[in-house]
Amino acid sequence: MYELYYWPTIQGRGEFVRLAMEEGRAPYVDIARGSGHGTGIAAMMRLLAGADRLERPPFAPPFLKAGRLLIGQTANILQFLGQRHGLAPKSEAGRLWTHQLQLTITDFLVEVHDTHHPVAASLHYEDQKKEARRRAADFLSSRLPKYLGYFENVLAQNPSARYLVGAKLTYADLSMFQVLAGLNYAFPHAMRKAARQFPRLVAHHARIQDRPRIAAYLASPRRIGFNNEGIFRRYPELDARRNAGKSSSRR
Amino acid sequence: MYELYYWPTIQGRGEFVRLAMEEGRAPYVDIARGSGHGTGIAAMMRLLAGADRLERPPFAPPFLKAGRLLIGQTANILQFLGQRHGLAPKSEAGRLWTHQLQLTITDFLVEVHDTHHPVAASLHYEDQKKEARRRAADFLSSRLPKYLGYFENVLAQNPSARYLVGAKLTYADLSMFQVLAGLNYAFPHAMRKAARQFPRLVAHHARIQDRPRIAAYLASPRRIGFNNEGIFRRYPELDARRNAGKSSSRR
Repeated sequence: MYELYYWPTIQGRGEFVRLAMEEGRAPYVDIARGSGHGTGIAAMMRLLAGADRLERPPFAPPFLKAGRLLIGQTANILQFLGQRHGLAPKSEAGRLWTHQLQLTITDFLVEVHDTHHPVAASLHYEDQKKEARRRAADFLSSRLPKYLGYFENVLAQNPSARYLVGAKLTYADLSMFQVLAGLNYAFPHAMRKAARQFPRLVAHHARIQDRPRIAAYLASPRRIGFNNEGIFRRYPELDARRNAGKSSSRR
Repeated sequence: MYELYYWPTIQGRGEFVRLAMEEGRAPYVDIARGSGHGTGIAAMMRLLAGADRLERPPFAPPFLKAGRLLIGQTANILQFLGQRHGLAPKSEAGRLWTHQLQLTITDFLVEVHDTHHPVAASLHYEDQKKEARRRAADFLSSRLPKYLGYFENVLAQNPSARYLVGAKLTYADLSMFQVLAGLNYAFPHAMRKAARQFPRLVAHHARIQDRPRIAAYLASPRRIGFNNEGIFRRYPELDARRNAGKSSSRR
């Protein structure tokens, strides 16, 4: 039984791990969301408070307990789970390529997060709104099309075309699904416009969403809804250039 | 013979790969810095221009050609080289932990970079100076001590205490060396103050720097100097709170 440690009220980076465990049928306890003895947010905070004394402390959630291993860093956890649960190729070349895609998704996520927190994660959004408007405008006009164009092209270049890597699902597909879901939540206007340019990604998203285990998970209470505490936040003033233009005239 | 593809005038993320190849005695050509036929910046730009047609295109430099493999993402390249050149443990637990540390260094680097580019990498520093001052102040007061404190503690918790992982050098040690070197360049005032709090990291830095192959590399023309085009940049107005205070009164 795996133990996932992550904040209990947001999808955040923990969601990439949850999706892999759900699709891979990996038995797990979502510790901070649990209500039994030794679970709940207090159990996670206890582990974090004592992390300094561990030989291999995690820097931040999510982290995964797997027997005697305590594994941190989302992409690292996924690499580990991928091998064990049939969510990554067996060949070295295939594993490296899957991980490379995951690390590019990691980079993308930082940039998504920083649209609403360009100055400091420790400050409220309200204290960095002006900077957020500038950063989000650049993100939507330049970075979003660059990243989505890259992944669209990866799908186009893959002879199988159904998945990012070869002819079988990997953890990178599940993460890509989550990124698109998050972007659709955070930037509905911008994404509606962008959809025409990224037909393969849109189809890929629907394909992952419709997989029986993923569909069942999304419909279950285990799936936390999007909200304005996570990586993907819906601040209308940051969405689409039309709106950004309006906002800046109101400064 | 490995082929490293990276921008020829900066250390940037390519430097983490260079350090691993130098210490691991991996034969390599630094393609964009070469002067022979098929090398030079034009060779890299040609590969980048045609990347869209590759089945496994890199998103951005650095990337490494290793026989038929083309590997992107710094941490992914290091994981690959680490296995082949004795720069990572052989056990699964050791490999995961080394990679976890590397990915935390990756996160740290993004935050260092964003001190001077909080709004957009595509804009000049001069066009985001005000935002940079806010971001750098938060970085120095909150993020820098958090990251350095984390790695200091990793050294403290490791019974060997000489390296980050167990009793042998890994690629994560080389990357940590580079991070300290860069921080000392970019934030000399802040780092002078911080040094007292992180004695193990300071000693670790000196230990790596003095390794024969690393010392030889640093003294060679293969080592590009720090400059204000890379991740670590010396903008005095972003360094140390004393200076940040002065700057903000001049706004």
